[in-house]
Amino acid sequence: MAQHSGKAIYLKNYPAGMPTEALFELRAAETPAPGPGEMLCRTVWMSVDPYMRGRMRPDVKSYIPPFSLDRPLEGGAVSQVMESNIEGYQPGDYVVDYTGGWKEYYLSRGEQTHKVDPNLAPLSAYLGVLGMPGMTAWAGITQILKPKEGETLFVSGAAGAVGSVVCQLGKIKGCRVIASAGSKAKCDWLVNEAGVDVALNYKDYKNAAELTKALAEAAPKDVDCYFENVGGMHLEAALHCIALGGRIALCGMISMYNLTEPEPGPSNLINLVARGALMRGFIVSEYMAKAMEFAAEVAPLLAQGKIKFQESVYEGLDKAPEAFIGLFKGENFGKAVVRVGPDRI
Amino acid sequence: MAQHSGKAIYLKNYPAGMPTEALFELRAAETPAPGPGEMLCRTVWMSVDPYMRGRMRPDVKSYIPPFSLDRPLEGGAVSQVMESNIEGYQPGDYVVDYTGGWKEYYLSRGEQTHKVDPNLAPLSAYLGVLGMPGMTAWAGITQILKPKEGETLFVSGAAGAVGSVVCQLGKIKGCRVIASAGSKAKCDWLVNEAGVDVALNYKDYKNAAELTKALAEAAPKDVDCYFENVGGMHLEAALHCIALGGRIALCGMISMYNLTEPEPGPSNLINLVARGALMRGFIVSEYMAKAMEFAAEVAPLLAQGKIKFQESVYEGLDKAPEAFIGLFKGENFGKAVVRVGPDRI
Repeated sequence: MAQHSGKAIYLKNYPAGMPTEALFELRAAETPAPGPGEMLCRTVWMSVDPYMRGRMRPDVKSYIPPFSLDRPLEGGAVSQVMESNIEGYQPGDYVVDYTGGWKEYYLSRGEQTHKVDPNLAPLSAYLGVLGMPGMTAWAGITQILKPKEGETLFVSGAAGAVGSVVCQLGKIKGCRVIASAGSKAKCDWLVNEAGVDVALNYKDYKNAAELTKALAEAAPKDVDCYFENVGGMHLEAALHCIALGGRIALCGMISMYNLTEPEPGPSNLINLVARGALMRGFIVSEYMAKAMEFAAEVAPLLAQGKIKFQESVYEGLDKAPEAFIGLFKGENFGKAVVRVGPDRI
Repeated sequence: MAQHSGKAIYLKNYPAGMPTEALFELRAAETPAPGPGEMLCRTVWMSVDPYMRGRMRPDVKSYIPPFSLDRPLEGGAVSQVMESNIEGYQPGDYVVDYTGGWKEYYLSRGEQTHKVDPNLAPLSAYLGVLGMPGMTAWAGITQILKPKEGETLFVSGAAGAVGSVVCQLGKIKGCRVIASAGSKAKCDWLVNEAGVDVALNYKDYKNAAELTKALAEAAPKDVDCYFENVGGMHLEAALHCIALGGRIALCGMISMYNLTEPEPGPSNLINLVARGALMRGFIVSEYMAKAMEFAAEVAPLLAQGKIKFQESVYEGLDKAPEAFIGLFKGENFGKAVVRVGPDRI
């Protein structure tokens, strides 16, 4: 077969502060026919995730390198194999590919790829609850927080792709779960669908002191585990309430990602000392060796309806920048995904 | 025997900000003759330690309760048994007692007590390198930081009772050790006696950015382990330089203990995420079950001259407030101890 004409999104410049759509450009992109050890894929669903903002900082030391301005952006995607020169992959197979996002067609060497079953769950779920965000939630819970039955778990960004799974895994493990999210609709979903014990709409609280008071009331026996997605006043409140022997899984601090000037951290980190508490930063790739264990635990819970999820769906590759920027404006509910192509062609 | 007349120090009020000598009062104190299961002890050496400032906050949740204003203060001491109704303790025995400080005589039930050998080390060493500070250093190194040979260890408050042992244990474990202290004399001792690779006099650096630059130059391969005693710009610098998979043992933040207004924390906590790094607060009592393991490792190192230590000695119980306040002014070199009575009577 000859080369394949499609489109791909490039980053024209690294953002300073909140990213704007003008920084992104949709360009024509030609994908050559696959050579030996390669396969041609078409992207069906692509993911936008907060961690991508970190890859837009060329000067930051991280487990993941920054994005190049000279190549299409990349990110998680569910794709369909069109032509394959890789043993084990057939045309028609669906795969999750960690570099397949932000483009319509691409060549894969099958190195950051695994096959997924379209009959087990909707394809887009492999970017959310059965994908990296779900795995992130599971790793934070099982590898860092290790909540015991009866403990109190506080989750910020609780209506997001990661937080919503954290909340539900916490309930399944017998915790009292206190969730924070940024709208009444999100809080209602958390209580009524995800089953959390208390949902705080953080926009009701003007500052850390007010949020702290609300959290202390919701957590009369202190916070044993805190899953941190947000930073700022959320971390301050959690540190105020952290229990003796408490654990904090530091997954992200989305409130800080687009600041042009660094914002000071919490003034009460010292609480970690007297309470013998732990704070552990992590990104999910550290735990990739446990992906099968994650799938074995979470896929049945999803199939049984014990874990629910929400999606914000954007239609068309050209909407990907809007979907990405929406992550930082609290506009998305649950997992934000972009439909790049039809499930079947 | 009849009751024993002596003196004891009371706290008259909880300090706001830096403690002053006026807050302390030396009062006459009568110690009754020991009843069944009790022994009468006379304090020989007492310890002043930064953690005691935390016990002067009546509103703080901690593993240790706040000091009462109605009883003499308490703290670690090396004491001699004068009369004993406890099996296993004889008059003349020397003991470390975690409640024996801030007074001349007291009754002990032998519950927070262990015997020490006056021939193995100078008695005061049981309050320093062979006591709680040494155990704190050892626990931070062996239970939290777990440095590997060739890794870089950064230590703040490095000339203090805890920090100086951390530095030397780090060298013994094959680390590159970067120490921070507050005077040229302390830095010279750290390099020439404790054997650290680089000593930074933090007073040479005006702000976090300057200290960060100096630390980054001293740690070209990043900071794998950070032992935190100080807080403020030290933590900011360490977080800037923290390695992938780095560990921070949060032992104290002495720069913050006497602030009347809380000071913001570091703006770069987010670095913990991308670097998969850990920060663990601790107080030594958590690891008390491992005290024998500590003694078995550190006592021989001391006997062989492989661990050196310094003391700031204050003569007389009435000097205890001055010794305590000196902790926060950087006036002490090594372990601050107060001689309350003669070694032998």
